[in-house]
Amino acid sequence: MTKQELFENIKRNKSFLCVGLDTDIKIIPKHLLAEEDPRFAFNKEIIDATAKYCIAYKMNCSYYPGSKGMLSLERTIAYIKDNYPDHFIIADGKRGDIGKSSEMYAEEYFDVLGVHAGTVAPYMGSDSVKPFLREGTWTILLALTSNEGADDFQLMFDGTNDDHHRLYQKVLKKGKSWATDEQLMFVVGATKYYYLTSVREIVPDHFLLIPGIGAQGGSLEEVCKYGMNSQCGLLVNNSRQIIYASNGEDFAEAAGQEAKKMQLEMAELLIKYGRIQPCLYSKTKKTKKRPRKRKKNKV
Amino acid sequence: MTKQELFENIKRNKSFLCVGLDTDIKIIPKHLLAEEDPRFAFNKEIIDATAKYCIAYKMNCSYYPGSKGMLSLERTIAYIKDNYPDHFIIADGKRGDIGKSSEMYAEEYFDVLGVHAGTVAPYMGSDSVKPFLREGTWTILLALTSNEGADDFQLMFDGTNDDHHRLYQKVLKKGKSWATDEQLMFVVGATKYYYLTSVREIVPDHFLLIPGIGAQGGSLEEVCKYGMNSQCGLLVNNSRQIIYASNGEDFAEAAGQEAKKMQLEMAELLIKYGRIQPCLYSKTKKTKKRPRKRKKNKV
Repeated sequence: MTKQELFENIKRNKSFLCVGLDTDIKIIPKHLLAEEDPRFAFNKEIIDATAKYCIAYKMNCSYYPGSKGMLSLERTIAYIKDNYPDHFIIADGKRGDIGKSSEMYAEEYFDVLGVHAGTVAPYMGSDSVKPFLREGTWTILLALTSNEGADDFQLMFDGTNDDHHRLYQKVLKKGKSWATDEQLMFVVGATKYYYLTSVREIVPDHFLLIPGIGAQGGSLEEVCKYGMNSQCGLLVNNSRQIIYASNGEDFAEAAGQEAKKMQLEMAELLIKYGRIQPCLYSKTKKTKKRPRKRKKNKV
Repeated sequence: MTKQELFENIKRNKSFLCVGLDTDIKIIPKHLLAEEDPRFAFNKEIIDATAKYCIAYKMNCSYYPGSKGMLSLERTIAYIKDNYPDHFIIADGKRGDIGKSSEMYAEEYFDVLGVHAGTVAPYMGSDSVKPFLREGTWTILLALTSNEGADDFQLMFDGTNDDHHRLYQKVLKKGKSWATDEQLMFVVGATKYYYLTSVREIVPDHFLLIPGIGAQGGSLEEVCKYGMNSQCGLLVNNSRQIIYASNGEDFAEAAGQEAKKMQLEMAELLIKYGRIQPCLYSKTKKTKKRPRKRKKNKV
């Protein structure tokens, strides 16, 4: 999927929402535990309820442990590809190793799991990142994350007078030198939106994956103000607020409602910043329904 | 397994060798591809052939992709625990995420896979590392890796006059403040042995996991000279030179011979640095054979 195709999807769904399927077996509604694969059963319903409000799904691999967990992950990916082939799929494993092992992780992302994009940690440097950079796939490199401990190392100052003298800025600059903006995105936490100006100085054209909206306290309005570029350039992830909106039998419907709320907010912002035209946007949602349950497999 | 128990194992086997089961399905001997689980079939024979020359096994998770790969990994871990319960088992996934996701990764390492130790990447800081720190388990934090790209960020200078002003030194210092040397080890690449003096200034008592001996060019003699502490404090990993010593039907025997060569070199160094007594060491290996194929399951 190219940047332009991503932008077309954003304009069509009036959304840059990525739903995070951080599916915790200890939290999902109890009635699903009787299913053969409770994680997949949960994901399937969440996906059906949220697909029209988002353009991407991200599975944090930590929620799919061991061979059983990986099987749920594989089923989830296959389900999205079969039924919502235009949705962008991200495996969020934050992988990174020496060259040969990174090659193996890249094969897992793009050949075994068959996702569009995988997240990568930069600590081990160029030869840990470059094996992920393939034509037609996306590597999403951690730059500035949304967690508290992010400050421990990512904001480290290099003692120079360089305008971009912090570790996360060096990661952005090196990353940019390794790959084009058709191959590489960056993770920038929404709780750090005051750094977005400096991020956009370094990578004006790259897509950014933004976690931390909602539960972690980030503001969508601020993220758009400082981070949106001409092709939107943002994939804003939300997980818990959507997928755990209810833990009753109505969990999927409740997730759909939460996703819809975010999509409406995103549509307003896309209009405000001129990325879509107001006349294309109708609150009554009378736009032509997209075909669903398509069987064509398209990566 | 405590530090003292690790040291006892080192003294008994006269070895601080960790065999890296980086089992690449594209490289293992062709005749194994007819097996139901070729990776596990390969590992089983390698383990039987090398167990008496090493004290630890490390599986780099990248070589066990998808649900099929994870199943091979689970079988391998169970086999080591059932048959060589004194051997230290490391899952080398270089994981790291925000708090809740790191908790999930810790559960995968210690509860789902049931290994003694797991490797963790520090980029996301304290709350990405702390969830791994549990009583009775080991976290192995990346500090200075053995690959070429390690220099990109790990050697970054913070511009202060602090004696320890590089990123990897900050990782060592922060890591040390988060956990004791009974919970935490560090990865320090053997190709960087000239930095070992500074590593030992900061963490004199911690065990270090040392990759990069052999194929990557590190010297065992130098690593011992600068890195060994009173309890040895080293787990030196070798993968390819041992496990791919032959790709014929004699692959396991050849692996055993390579492991034996390294064990003999390590025994000499343990004597040289006074960690074992020469009288305990016999080149003819007439020491009492350790019981094998024990069924007791001990984590």
